Amino acid sequence: MQIVSTIKEVKHIVKQWKIEGQTLGFVPTMGYLHEGHGSLITAARQENSKVVVSIFINPMQFGPTEDYDSYPNDLEKDRNVCESLGADLIFHPAPEEMYPKDFFTYVDMSVLTEELCGLNRPGHFRGVCTVVNKMFNIIQPDHAYFGQKDAQQLAVIKQMVKDLNMNIEVIGCPIVREEDGLAKSSRNTYLSAIERKAALILSKTIFMGENKVKEGETDAKKLIAAMKANIEAEPMAKIEYVKAVDGLTMKQTTRIKPQTLIAIAVYIGKTRLIDNFIAH
Amino acid sequence: MQIVSTIKEVKHIVKQWKIEGQTLGFVPTMGYLHEGHGSLITAARQENSKVVVSIFINPMQFGPTEDYDSYPNDLEKDRNVCESLGADLIFHPAPEEMYPKDFFTYVDMSVLTEELCGLNRPGHFRGVCTVVNKMFNIIQPDHAYFGQKDAQQLAVIKQMVKDLNMNIEVIGCPIVREEDGLAKSSRNTYLSAIERKAALILSKTIFMGENKVKEGETDAKKLIAAMKANIEAEPMAKIEYVKAVDGLTMKQTTRIKPQTLIAIAVYIGKTRLIDNFIAH
Repeated sequence: MQIVSTIKEVKHIVKQWKIEGQTLGFVPTMGYLHEGHGSLITAARQENSKVVVSIFINPMQFGPTEDYDSYPNDLEKDRNVCESLGADLIFHPAPEEMYPKDFFTYVDMSVLTEELCGLNRPGHFRGVCTVVNKMFNIIQPDHAYFGQKDAQQLAVIKQMVKDLNMNIEVIGCPIVREEDGLAKSSRNTYLSAIERKAALILSKTIFMGENKVKEGETDAKKLIAAMKANIEAEPMAKIEYVKAVDGLTMKQTTRIKPQTLIAIAVYIGKTRLIDNFIAH
Repeated sequence: MQIVSTIKEVKHIVKQWKIEGQTLGFVPTMGYLHEGHGSLITAARQENSKVVVSIFINPMQFGPTEDYDSYPNDLEKDRNVCESLGADLIFHPAPEEMYPKDFFTYVDMSVLTEELCGLNRPGHFRGVCTVVNKMFNIIQPDHAYFGQKDAQQLAVIKQMVKDLNMNIEVIGCPIVREEDGLAKSSRNTYLSAIERKAALILSKTIFMGENKVKEGETDAKKLIAAMKANIEAEPMAKIEYVKAVDGLTMKQTTRIKPQTLIAIAVYIGKTRLIDNFIAH
């Protein structure tokens, strides 16, 4: 497995692979890899002859008051994870490599970015679209893998690829959870022991909501009220949003139907966590 | 020569060409082709084994009060021009093919779009970047050809390709002029006989400015004042801008040096015309 840090090197390697007729699977990450990322790498490994993982904490997708400076990293561990899961290449650029002096372009979208995380993190999806667009042009994958935990991000990337006619298939992979239910996230590392316990309220509420929908609940207002009440019973939790939205457009919906996304964002202390499920 | 109207068909043809190892030259146009476009197709023909011309009047780059509805077209003539210059494929999509229902993504940039035409045509370069980004992903050219007449557009496209790491070389081609000096433009067709004569003030002013720079003028303020006075002597002309800007960033400059762009936009009656030169 190779680790490269310049765009030129990656393009050179990818060009050779293309000539050889290799199929490329790509897993974009911000590093500090957990089993959620691992499941994406494994999926990429199964479906492609070459697998590229990018590790890049993208400054453009963080707001000025967010955790860019404290975002966790452990390249040595990440390298071992990638190697053990059979990745062929890690692309680990410096911020200046991705955003040199006189960088002016951005990719953004309306509608899908106006609800959920987009509402509370202005500019976040502009940063995501721009960096992923760049990564797609650098790595030119046949398939790109994203976690369903960041449901809005997955929808936004799929929309970008469709709208801009990019020659890439975007594949969403299921949420991976800790044994007790908490969705895997690099940000879980911020939690103290007591916060870690309180954070279970997210997955518990998701499972509760999922059950209600399975049992026939179709009224979004009722479902959301029940989920909110559940979260509010946890003193350490502060709700950012609990919403039911169309799974493609991210527009709020009043009726739960197949493909409706029910998504939550909750602060546990200073740590912002997200979770979701899709109605079937 | 083939003419196709769907993205699917173009992608299918391009995929086959890529497998065969063909090099692709691409000339994006809004049709109503003149010798300026012709020079781009000829350049593409000389430097690539396959040449694609797109003919698409892009609604997204026109403002609400602009000439989208009256923009001239003549597909039959365009087809003959392309055929005679040796193009292999015309891509001529309908607006709904490029912008289907639920189209939300855009590509845009700061700085380069804030002066000159961008100042007076808000949203114009967002439309240009978005459609060209789409076209580049659909056609996947090795080389793309743009006229130097739309100098800011050329700079914007080069910047987009650089910033987004697209695998395309953008090539600017010299302005092509009528015998009397007027820069070729599809919009020249709007001019009445008397306006056509008055429109000569643009090229005359460009040549005058060019001479002054050759003779050693480096003071942008003086040069612009002289050029403005020249245009104002023509009663049918109304200046939109006369500016000297950095050739890469499009930022206004006070000193003329190599690569400074001197650009003008002038209304002749209701017709907006542009012209420019680059200092050497």
